[in-house]
Parts: sequence; structure tokens; C-alpha cells
Amino acid sequence: MPFQPPSQTAARPLSQAAADAFAAALGADAVLTSPDSVDEFRDPFSHPAWTDHAASAVVMPATAEEVQAVVRIAGEHRIALWTFSQGRNNAYGGPAPRVPGSVQVSLRRMNRVLEVNEELAYAVVEPGVRFFDLYDHLRAQGHRVWSSAPDLGWGSVIGNALDHGVGYTVDGDHAARLCGLEVVLPDGSLLRTGMGAMSGNRSWHAYPRGFGPTADGLFKQSGLGIVTRAGIWLMPEPECYLSGGVQVPRKEDLPALVDAIRPLLLDRTIQNQPAIGHPLFVAAVMDGSPTRAEVYDGPGPVPEEAVLRLARHMDIGRWNTRFALYGTEGIVDARFARVRQALSVIPGARVVGEKFAGHAVHDTARDQNAQVQAGIPSLDLMRALSWYSGEGGGHLDFSTVSPLRGADVVRAHALLDDRLAGSGLDYDPAMILGQRHIINVAQLYFDPADEKQTGDAYRLYPELVRTLAGAGYGVYRTHVDFMDVVADQYGWGDHALRRFNERLKDALDPHGVLAPGKQGVWPAGLRHLRDVSPSR
Amino acid sequence: MPFQPPSQTAARPLSQAAADAFAAALGADAVLTSPDSVDEFRDPFSHPAWTDHAASAVVMPATAEEVQAVVRIAGEHRIALWTFSQGRNNAYGGPAPRVPGSVQVSLRRMNRVLEVNEELAYAVVEPGVRFFDLYDHLRAQGHRVWSSAPDLGWGSVIGNALDHGVGYTVDGDHAARLCGLEVVLPDGSLLRTGMGAMSGNRSWHAYPRGFGPTADGLFKQSGLGIVTRAGIWLMPEPECYLSGGVQVPRKEDLPALVDAIRPLLLDRTIQNQPAIGHPLFVAAVMDGSPTRAEVYDGPGPVPEEAVLRLARHMDIGRWNTRFALYGTEGIVDARFARVRQALSVIPGARVVGEKFAGHAVHDTARDQNAQVQAGIPSLDLMRALSWYSGEGGGHLDFSTVSPLRGADVVRAHALLDDRLAGSGLDYDPAMILGQRHIINVAQLYFDPADEKQTGDAYRLYPELVRTLAGAGYGVYRTHVDFMDVVADQYGWGDHALRRFNERLKDALDPHGVLAPGKQGVWPAGLRHLRDVSPSR
Repeated sequence: MPFQPPSQTAARPLSQAAADAFAAALGADAVLTSPDSVDEFRDPFSHPAWTDHAASAVVMPATAEEVQAVVRIAGEHRIALWTFSQGRNNAYGGPAPRVPGSVQVSLRRMNRVLEVNEELAYAVVEPGVRFFDLYDHLRAQGHRVWSSAPDLGWGSVIGNALDHGVGYTVDGDHAARLCGLEVVLPDGSLLRTGMGAMSGNRSWHAYPRGFGPTADGLFKQSGLGIVTRAGIWLMPEPECYLSGGVQVPRKEDLPALVDAIRPLLLDRTIQNQPAIGHPLFVAAVMDGSPTRAEVYDGPGPVPEEAVLRLARHMDIGRWNTRFALYGTEGIVDARFARVRQALSVIPGARVVGEKFAGHAVHDTARDQNAQVQAGIPSLDLMRALSWYSGEGGGHLDFSTVSPLRGADVVRAHALLDDRLAGSGLDYDPAMILGQRHIINVAQLYFDPADEKQTGDAYRLYPELVRTLAGAGYGVYRTHVDFMDVVADQYGWGDHALRRFNERLKDALDPHGVLAPGKQGVWPAGLRHLRDVSPSR
Repeated sequence: MPFQPPSQTAARPLSQAAADAFAAALGADAVLTSPDSVDEFRDPFSHPAWTDHAASAVVMPATAEEVQAVVRIAGEHRIALWTFSQGRNNAYGGPAPRVPGSVQVSLRRMNRVLEVNEELAYAVVEPGVRFFDLYDHLRAQGHRVWSSAPDLGWGSVIGNALDHGVGYTVDGDHAARLCGLEVVLPDGSLLRTGMGAMSGNRSWHAYPRGFGPTADGLFKQSGLGIVTRAGIWLMPEPECYLSGGVQVPRKEDLPALVDAIRPLLLDRTIQNQPAIGHPLFVAAVMDGSPTRAEVYDGPGPVPEEAVLRLARHMDIGRWNTRFALYGTEGIVDARFARVRQALSVIPGARVVGEKFAGHAVHDTARDQNAQVQAGIPSLDLMRALSWYSGEGGGHLDFSTVSPLRGADVVRAHALLDDRLAGSGLDYDPAMILGQRHIINVAQLYFDPADEKQTGDAYRLYPELVRTLAGAGYGVYRTHVDFMDVVADQYGWGDHALRRFNERLKDALDPHGVLAPGKQGVWPAGLRHLRDVSPSR
């Protein structure tokens, strides 16, 4: 099916009155309206002709007060806003809004690290602060605390956490490590959550709740507010850090691998969020790996035989786990002994570990695994993209949650593997392990300049959403294009959750100005746009 | 000032029509309306003549459907409901409602353990399940997982977690260990949060979020819903468990003690929530301790000299810390070495530890510290109450949060010590340590039969609330009588949080049927009752 023009309202220019109001509030240089400048903030992985997620303008407030002004102006002029902190989450649409014609609110100018409390191991940051920025700040000030970072360091610390993003230190569950928010509500008023609701309270960023209901979860994956500052927990620099690996030789080893690691996560022997990678994914980011064409140049996905050959060639496993241990050297050694013992049940499993002095890791950790598990941000993972798709390549990430059980993981894999192979796509999952769950990320690669190929990926995605949901596995985070279909799967009790979310939305945002359609939550006035999306 | 008759509406009998509707929905035996039967569910520590928190009836639904029916009937008849799971939190009012004349919803009949997933270390329970029940169930079924328990085991697992209660294993932050809720909303509809919003999702109780905003925090310390089931995380039975203690000799050692333990919590050497106790509090629960009159029989609080004499006599420290370590024996030993080394900076500190085989702890742990840090529930702490006040004694708990810093702890202590001494009361704090915060619990003891003494404690409490808030320390949980004054301290931004909470309240509960006034959140129709409380 060829690409069709979008069937919902296409982007229109912003009214002059609204543009003037924004410029009066923020200064003219903070309001971008020319098509070229706005186009910088489009979804970089969509086909150039697709305009269904095109914005009409970009505003760039520099303070919470300016964010409040933006929200109030949007209310007066009935403008849909779409906020991004850095807008670098390209596999999920980058900064692109759900509703075409929205005004994007870029928080990149709000880039101050407001506080570092080394004693209590937290920082207070604005949403424009990137993982690189926080890391650099901590290093420059000589703080002996580590921040956590996801695979790519160019994103926003707050934005990633609000989107339920993950990293790989003990603080890898970023959403759970936010503590104390300041939020601009849809009416332009300002809220401080938790202990921050008490003026002068000394525990705002140390204790995650206050008195009465805790609202913080409402502002994550949400259009109920714009977070303008937040506390984020850090970890103390450990005496010793071990970056470890577990490689298993056979495709069939995956369930045993997952089941052997689970007890180590449940009893906190392993404290970080480990990851398990497919050889294609792992090799794609390694030095000296062959190109995809060298691995396999036939039609369709790389066959298992070639995958195994690649693994042997690169001296990696059929499944490759990284994990980390932290503590005194004595504690790390005792933990590592337990890891070795637990993994020894898998024939041929190779368990390795490299120890670093915590204070020296910034200079001594060389590979991306050792770096990211110490919270050192990089852009190394971009290599995977070019390995698959060349310099201009794009991808969609299809990310589902399952319980941390081997049987569930292979069941979900079988469904995906089958469906991707049927579409001629490689299935090279990367898995991120929590204490009781696993996030399985399947990358759908394409060349955005190739409309057919891009459209194929876009058409496949909702099928995968429904197939996996039917088996009990939910997508936890998605591209703007698929928010409605994903939300639709969370339909228990005649869509009880959606009705609840939209009741809150209407109560807090009666004009529907903040991020309409985000995560499938629509304000009353725009509910007719639900499920209205371009046919690809 | 002598006790005055309550100035807000006193309890009225339930209308016959409403009582009939409840009986039709639940069965006549599930609706208690006689004064004697309702009186069983009053605040056990209030003066017998005080009726300002007296209920008009008690209903006892046995299923979520029956809870839905109760809420719908309440909406039709405009009845204020007040829910309790077990209603055992006597220092905070037990099951007593904020608004006199409310109908109490007892969830004690909803007492099923619905599921135990040993592989993923969680249980799914109904709100009537007590810590004793869950523990007994796990033992009876031979599950090798430990639940967490607070100091008294008779409370509800869910109720305690929803009230931000604490325990002493690695899962001691109970509110953070709930995963996946089923909730009856104020309109009688049913909501499942997180992954539970997807029918058949396999990660409901394994992954704490779903897709879009996370509502779970809204139902804690809240009148926005009635939780009818929840997942609660457990810990795997460890190979080795060490119940440890640190005693320091001098009153002035407290800040150094707190500051020495903090790094051990931040780096997760100590994984549980340790506690620090005053000698009076610790001795009160020990075998063979002298009575208070034997310690000191003069007027006013026990002087420091007598406190030190008692500590020497009982062979305990001036401050007594308990903590726990879990893991393989090798990991526990390595951790204990780090604890010893970190605490050695305090002259005279005594660090002790007793190791148990995890599987045998149920039979071998003897004292309450060793038991509760293994999640074994008891009622031993009731002894402290009778030690102070005799069999019929009562107390109010005054519980504030501060950052986990010695300087903050002693600052808060100085304020409290001074004010309690001025009222002739002992100050015998128990402190519960989180990773970055400390909860300081001061017990105000009195004899509920003595109206003057009880009134004195009630009059002192709001003064303490304001004094501590002025210094930056907030009460995290309180007795029904003080919810308004506590909430009032969280007034940043012209009471932005209160306005937000009440906007949600009005949107979700327009008739104000669920727990009006809970935590200072009032529905539109009853806001005139705010701050209306009996003068004591």
C-alpha cells in the first residue's frame, strides 16, 4: 500500500497573534516559525514527504516562568503544545508531535545543573541537561558520584526518565530515581511534588513522597504537565567496579541464561540492569566487525548459520550478557563468585569480568559496556544504525515488557522472530533486565528515503503490537505514530485506564493544550483524532 | 484548656434506607449499626467521651464487587465512607474516620492471598491480609521467599503500604514495593493500574508501570479509591542472614553514627532499613528491664543521668542501631567487614552481628530485632506501650522526615527534646533509616482515661507539627485529628499541592463519598469542615 496523504489536520502556520504573544513573552529569538527552522525538529527517521507529525512552530523558554507563559498563551489561543527536553529519542519519533500543527516546546535552553548534593548522592537538574552535561559537570566539579546514562548520551536526563527510559548502573531504572519534581500544569500554575510542597523542606530530593497522594507518576509518559526541574538520584563512586560478561554458545541457551540470572537480580548480587544482546546487534557496535553484506548478502534476514559464523568470528556468544558489580573489592569478589557459580549450570557459558578502581574508571574503561555500566555516556551505539542502514539509516524500536522468565522471553521471541522473518527483516533483539521484568527491544531498520521500505516498517509495527499484546506482552514506550494502537491494548474493563486518564486530562487540561494524544490520552475536544492516522 | 464538645457534626445514625441498601448488597450480617458494635471500631487511644471521630455504621464487603456496591450506595445516599483494611494503626487513630458519622468500610473480610509467585518473588493479596497471614501462608506452603513486616504484625499488608508504612527487610519501603493495583474508584467502577490495564498481561506484578501516566501514587494516603488487591514484592530467602547491631556510648555520638551509616546505605552495603533507638524505647521492649518508676520516679521526663544508668544496666548503648545483611555467607562477611570498618571511626562503638542460615531463621531467630529484619511479624513492641502507660495506655506518634544527615537529625531532635521536656514528657525517639532520609518517630504517651493528660498530648501535637515544619522537616503520616494542620504545612505556591489534590478529588469523586478530609484533602461539598476540629 503506497503512502497516502495524512487524513488528520495537516500542519498550518501559527497565527500571527499567537506568534506575537510568544515573542513578547520569550523574545523573538526564542520563537521559530520559518519552515526551515521548524523542519530541524521533525522526526529524523520519517519519510521526507510525510507531514503528519509536522509542527507549526518551535518555542524555546529558558525558565519555568517562561514555560508558564507559553502554557498560558497556548490556553488563550487554543494551541496544542508538544514538549520535548532534547528530542533525541529518534527511534520513537524524536521531537515530533502527535498532532500536526502543534507548537513544539523545546526545553533545550533550560540546561542548568542546579545542585549537586554529594553527601546524599543526588543532583537537581533542568530538563535541557543532557547525560553528557551532567556527567561533565560531575567530573569538572570533582564529585565522587556517578550518574546513570542510557545507550546514547545526547538525550535529556529528565526527558528520558519521564519517558520510562533505562540506564545501566544501579540507578538504571531512571523513572524510579527521579525524586521531587517541579511541574508547570496545563493552566500555567506551578506545582512542587513530594516534600517540595513544603517551603524550605530539607528532604525534597531525598524522600520520594510527601503527605497525601503522590502525583509524580502522573507526569511521566504524560501530557498533564511540563517538568521544569527534578531531583535525580546518583550513586557513590565505588571503591571497585567490575564490568562483567556472560556468553552462551547456543540459541537455545537463552531461557536457561535468563533463569540463571534472575536469582542474582532478585537477591541483588547483580545491582545494575544487565543487558543481553544478539550477535548482530553486538557485532554492529564492535571494532573490526564485518559489514552486514559480508555477513550475509542474500535476500531476507541473516540466517542462523551466518549469525553463528559471525559470533565465532568476533569471538562472542550466541547471546551476550553484560552486567556490573560494585562495592569494596571484597564485596565485588564475593559477588562475582556467586555469579560464576550460578552461571556454571549452562554448558559452555563463559563468564568474564574486568575490575576497575572506581576513581579511575573515567580514564581506564575503554569499551562501551564498561563505560555505560559506570554511567559514562557516549554515542557509540549509533554505529549499529549505520551498520544496518548506512549513514542516513533509520529505525523504529519495538519494545515490550515480559516477566523475567526464560519461558516468557522465548515465547515473545518466537512471535517476533516469525513475524520479522516474514517481512524479510533481521531480528536482533537487545534485552534489558530489571529485577522481575525484561524489556525486549527489537529494532526495525529502514532507509527513510525509501518510502516503500519505511512504510513497510510502519505497517508492520501495529501488527506486532497486537500480536504481542494477544500473548500478554505490552509495549512500554513507543513512537508517536503508534501511541493509539498501543494504548488500545491496555483496554481491560472497557478501557477503564483510558477513561480514568482522560477524566484527569479533562479536569487538569480542559482546553487540551498539553501534548494531546500523547500515549493515547486525548482531551475532550480532540478525541475525534484518536486512531486517525495516515495509512502508510 | 479542658475538652470541649466537638464543634463539627457529631455522629448521626445511618438512615434506614441506606442501611437497607447496604444490607441488600452485602447481607445483613455485614452491616453493623448498633452503637456497641460500631464502638468496637473507634480510636482505641482517644478519650472515651470524645465522639468527634465516631462512625455511624460499619460495612464489611467481602469482594471487590461488594466494595463497588458500597461505593455506589454511598454515592446515591450521599454518605461519607472511611475505609480501613485492618484499622490497627492505633497511634494514628486506628480505624476512626476524619468526619464523624462516616460509614466505616472494613476490608477485614477480604483476606485472601490470591497468588504467590516464588519464581518472581511476589504475592498478590487482598487488603484484609495481615502481615501475620501472609507470613503464615508463605510458611505453610513452604515458599522460600520472605515478606517484610513493620514493628507490629497485626496490620494489613496493603493498608500499611498505602499509608507509606515501613518494614525492615530489603523491602522495608512498603509503598515502593506495591506493584500493580486493583482499585474501586469513587464512582464504583474498577481500575487496574500498570500492566494490569492489559487483559492477560503477564507482567502486572513484575513491572511497576504500564503505558502512559502511572496512577498508583494517587491511591496511597488517599481518598481517591479503595484498593481491593495488589501485588507486593518479596525477597528470596537468603543463604545467610546477619542481624547486626551498632551501639554508641554517648548522646553526642548520634550525628557521627548517622553520618557513618549513610555511605553504607547509599552504596547498598546495608540493604535493609536500619533503625536507631533511644535507650528508653529499647529497654521498654527487652526482657528483664526495670519499670519506668524504677528508672526514675521524679516529676517530668527521665533525666539523662538515669537514661545512661539504664543503658549501662541493660548493657545497651546510648543509641542502639539494628541493621541486616543478606546474601551468600561470603557476601555477608564482606559486607560485615565494610560495616565494621566504617563504624570504627566512632570511639567506643560496639558492632555486633549474629548470622543465621536463611532457611532456619524462622526457628532460630529469638529477639524481635532478628525476627523483624527477617520479616517475622510479632506484637513484641506492644510492650513499650505498657512499659510507659500500663495496660490501658495510649500514644500518638509524631513522625517527621529529615535528610539522612547527622546535623539534620540532631537539629530536629533538639527542637523536639526541648518541647517535650517542657511538657514533662519523655523523648525516646525511634528512627528508621532509608537510603537518603530518616524518619524520626517520637511517641507521646498518655492514659486515654485521663482526659487532661490525653488533651495535653493532643494540644502539643499541632505545635510540634508547626515547629518542625518551620525548620524544614515534614510529618509524613499522622493521626486523623491532625491531618489538616499537617497538610497545611505543605503550602508552597499558595497551596499548589492542595489545590491540585482537590481538583483531582472533585473530578474523580464529585459527591465526596470517599474518605473526606483524609490527609487534608476535602471534596468541594465538605471543604467547610477543613480545620474544624474539636478544641482539646
